[in-house]
Amino acid sequence: MRLVRFGDRGAERPGLVDDAGGIRDLSQHVAALEGAALDPQNLATLAAIDPASLPKVAEGTRLCKPIDRIGKIVGVGPNYSDSASLAGFRINPEPTLFMKAATAACGPNDAIEIPKVAGRVDWGVELAVVIGRVAKYASVEDGQRAIAGYCLANDVTERNFQLQRGGQWTKGKSHDTFCPLGPYLVTTDELPDPDQIELWLDVNGERQQIGATGEMIFKIPYLVSYISRFMRLEPGDVILTGTLAGVGLSYDPPRFLKPGDRVRLGGTRLGEQENLCVQI
Amino acid sequence: MRLVRFGDRGAERPGLVDDAGGIRDLSQHVAALEGAALDPQNLATLAAIDPASLPKVAEGTRLCKPIDRIGKIVGVGPNYSDSASLAGFRINPEPTLFMKAATAACGPNDAIEIPKVAGRVDWGVELAVVIGRVAKYASVEDGQRAIAGYCLANDVTERNFQLQRGGQWTKGKSHDTFCPLGPYLVTTDELPDPDQIELWLDVNGERQQIGATGEMIFKIPYLVSYISRFMRLEPGDVILTGTLAGVGLSYDPPRFLKPGDRVRLGGTRLGEQENLCVQI
Repeated sequence: MRLVRFGDRGAERPGLVDDAGGIRDLSQHVAALEGAALDPQNLATLAAIDPASLPKVAEGTRLCKPIDRIGKIVGVGPNYSDSASLAGFRINPEPTLFMKAATAACGPNDAIEIPKVAGRVDWGVELAVVIGRVAKYASVEDGQRAIAGYCLANDVTERNFQLQRGGQWTKGKSHDTFCPLGPYLVTTDELPDPDQIELWLDVNGERQQIGATGEMIFKIPYLVSYISRFMRLEPGDVILTGTLAGVGLSYDPPRFLKPGDRVRLGGTRLGEQENLCVQI
Repeated sequence: MRLVRFGDRGAERPGLVDDAGGIRDLSQHVAALEGAALDPQNLATLAAIDPASLPKVAEGTRLCKPIDRIGKIVGVGPNYSDSASLAGFRINPEPTLFMKAATAACGPNDAIEIPKVAGRVDWGVELAVVIGRVAKYASVEDGQRAIAGYCLANDVTERNFQLQRGGQWTKGKSHDTFCPLGPYLVTTDELPDPDQIELWLDVNGERQQIGATGEMIFKIPYLVSYISRFMRLEPGDVILTGTLAGVGLSYDPPRFLKPGDRVRLGGTRLGEQENLCVQI
């Protein structure tokens, strides 16, 4: 099942994608894609609904981030060895974790804001894991069972804010619109093998990143288990699993996003995002 | 006005403290201390209610963290010069920011969990700022106006997780119960000068930290303004403004919390917390 949220800001409703690729309105069956609604058992109930029985949503309706009320966004640092070495980051023997403000999340086609005094805004296509069940000191098996599904994400970073402004990555990771998510929340039944996803990202039509999730150093169920030793994971939490080689910082000279740039990214069965960069 | 939340887990209700120090039930006037309810204008409406008109709450009722649905907890690194140098941290020319998972927040008298494999759990009394209004690129004046109030906080940290486990502080800051908050949300009308608060913390009856918020390097309205350049602040967000000299890491040899320890802390007009440390 591919779940979406659609509609204007402040009036978003839950929906699903039917076999023909159209959006159907799920709001009579679930009030919001958040909290307990994301439990894999509750998602199975939604998956049993015949999409043809649901109202069609007009084509061209805005898609939003596919989950409501994100509790926290936990980022995983270098998790593809070629990406890490190219960008000058060290691979740790265990995952590096950071947090991104939940307010950074936005819809898959929303504009990416270039912050004031920013000069080094970088991209990073990633597979995002959406938590559907509480995980605390979870085993790898329970880590797997805590997953509601997956979505495409862009872990946008301002590199000066991240690296030059006082020691922790938070400042460079958290600006509004620095985490486009979606278009879909693809549930685990629809994507039983998240190690087989090809991810890519273009800037202004030029390919910058391409790779496959099979190349991750730390695998997804392990990441859920690992993170749950340090903090409780709850339904609606999002894990960003690390980006591929080809971020702007890794070029010589480095390349960064500027107003007017168009970013497109996609992943196998995850759909595509397209974002215009705008100065604010 | 001093606002509280009281009751058993999962059934918390909003209340206020009357002049005699008793708790009164506010739930007929406000559903939850979250979101728009924290706007200073809405808080002023609550402050106009005669406490004597509200139902009394039984003495000894559990107090919870004084706000619902915390969006994010933003921590400020070394912000008192003596604290920073004693613990071996560098003072940056601008504030160091980090994030603590919102799930780390707990009530003022809840047990502090000593995580599995943890050996260096440290304390840190702080003044917490609760945001009541959206702030994004806020001026210092607008930063001040975005504040709903203040509360007492303990920024609990596992120092191995923070410093030895992969580069970012998040791991050491985010365990469940690592952010006791309260007992009260003290609104700005009740605490017009947050630079005059004395803070203290005892472990097992022995004083570890004492100091005054007037010694902060970066002042509160500036911190709100500064953080809002990097991320949107929203009602229900919490800023931890940094701790005083006397954390366990700064002793030679260092001192850390162990199961059975009792932590007590307090602040002028902010009330007191008492927490028992328990192994989980």
